[in-house]
Amino acid sequence: MRTVYVNGVFCPEDEGKVSIFDRGFLFADAVYEVVSVLDGKLVDFAGHMARLARSLGELAMAAPTSDDELLAIHRRLIAENALEEGAVYLQVTRGPADRDFLFPPQDTKPSLVLFTQAAALRDKPAARTGIRVVTLPDLRWQRRDIKTVQLLYPSMAKTEAKRRGADDAWMVEDGCVTEGSSNNAYIVDAGGKLVTRPLSHAILPGITRIAVLRLAAESGIAIKERPFTVDEALAAKEAFISSASSFVMPVVEIDGQPIADGRPGEITRRLRAIYIEEALKTAI
Amino acid sequence: MRTVYVNGVFCPEDEGKVSIFDRGFLFADAVYEVVSVLDGKLVDFAGHMARLARSLGELAMAAPTSDDELLAIHRRLIAENALEEGAVYLQVTRGPADRDFLFPPQDTKPSLVLFTQAAALRDKPAARTGIRVVTLPDLRWQRRDIKTVQLLYPSMAKTEAKRRGADDAWMVEDGCVTEGSSNNAYIVDAGGKLVTRPLSHAILPGITRIAVLRLAAESGIAIKERPFTVDEALAAKEAFISSASSFVMPVVEIDGQPIADGRPGEITRRLRAIYIEEALKTAI
Repeated sequence: MRTVYVNGVFCPEDEGKVSIFDRGFLFADAVYEVVSVLDGKLVDFAGHMARLARSLGELAMAAPTSDDELLAIHRRLIAENALEEGAVYLQVTRGPADRDFLFPPQDTKPSLVLFTQAAALRDKPAARTGIRVVTLPDLRWQRRDIKTVQLLYPSMAKTEAKRRGADDAWMVEDGCVTEGSSNNAYIVDAGGKLVTRPLSHAILPGITRIAVLRLAAESGIAIKERPFTVDEALAAKEAFISSASSFVMPVVEIDGQPIADGRPGEITRRLRAIYIEEALKTAI
Repeated sequence: MRTVYVNGVFCPEDEGKVSIFDRGFLFADAVYEVVSVLDGKLVDFAGHMARLARSLGELAMAAPTSDDELLAIHRRLIAENALEEGAVYLQVTRGPADRDFLFPPQDTKPSLVLFTQAAALRDKPAARTGIRVVTLPDLRWQRRDIKTVQLLYPSMAKTEAKRRGADDAWMVEDGCVTEGSSNNAYIVDAGGKLVTRPLSHAILPGITRIAVLRLAAESGIAIKERPFTVDEALAAKEAFISSASSFVMPVVEIDGQPIADGRPGEITRRLRAIYIEEALKTAI
């Protein structure tokens, strides 16, 4: 049984509980981060903490504790659960308060929950074969740049993708792909240029996205940040997604139509290899 | 201390807890209802249970138990907490499961949480003076007809309204009012016609809305279900909101500009009186 962390206490997972009055439970008034673990070390911890601070700031939510303390909690969970590869999930809520749409008093204590999930991240069959996606309308709220737990629609979309025999959904708004259910979306166009949607309120500012764009630039790959259509994606040479847990993952089919020859592209494979190499080197 | 209900157990409120793995907490994968209580009795219980069944159906979520059992739980909470006036809050989630965007197996046990809140519903100062609203863009997801706990934006909107010295927010999309932060919106036009937005994915199908429209029709008030603009609302003779806990509540100011003479309108006051009379008569 895993050890989890809930509001100052390390406990067995079946004792990990929050109040039914927690605003994370009643109002989805909560934000989260997922930090990948490779060889027992945290990948881009500082990046995730910077985004957490931004999410909290956008929602005028208090930080639960210092980044140093958060790092210590992450590390203790990794140690107690002997986690070699997988992720640490962290959620901060505005805390428990009698139910009211109005934010509770500023001195309400935020809730802090962390747990680990073991998973093979490097050696995934899908990294070799690529994943298939279906397109679905993007029905989410308009502040997707804030990493809140309002994840019902992404959850519905991923479940619908699976029902249709695919692996994930690409969400489409005004004809253009916004992002995947829990990842950023990219294509490589006919000229070999990497195309991905620019940051805005429409998509999550992926921590892995920052690294991928930096590593691509360092590798001499041209980058164009602009929205792309589903037709452009279908005509692309390559397509892929990025996220903390999937790293760089090739997309080989959209709505049943193969991308190029239906196999992971060369730039995608190279970026995945470089990303993993870098992640292993810099994990703490 | 209140007695609350959590997954089969009646317990003191400070013991009311759910797993940190509950999908209501991690994914906002949950729906809710709020049934008003007058004289210790439930107002329009059947209507709320019908909407709950619809919400669950739209999300392919299992019902936690029968309506008869839910009624028994509501009544026991009312009795144990000696609740005369206020509301019973009910939330159903898809249950606890290891974190995954994919819906968990169909045999995952849904979570069921209920608690009471005492509040004066009939005798509210605001019912005599009216409330002031501000308009804000409607940034919510596109399936507002499902009563999910993805309530962060309504919560932000209500808090912003309060910050601006108002009581609530009216949300605006494509120039038209969708609804309030947790209520349906109405105006009475120059011709004395009651105008409110028709049901669609854009708004919640209010249980009180059904009753208000029926009672208005029975009172010989002409009704037009169509979207209305903020300018139309500002030029209206009357404006009001409806919800399970506010019944019919006059709106007397929008973005600092008074509606008509800035006092609750006659039709609004009449509908509130009729609604309360009917609610008292039919509560169970």
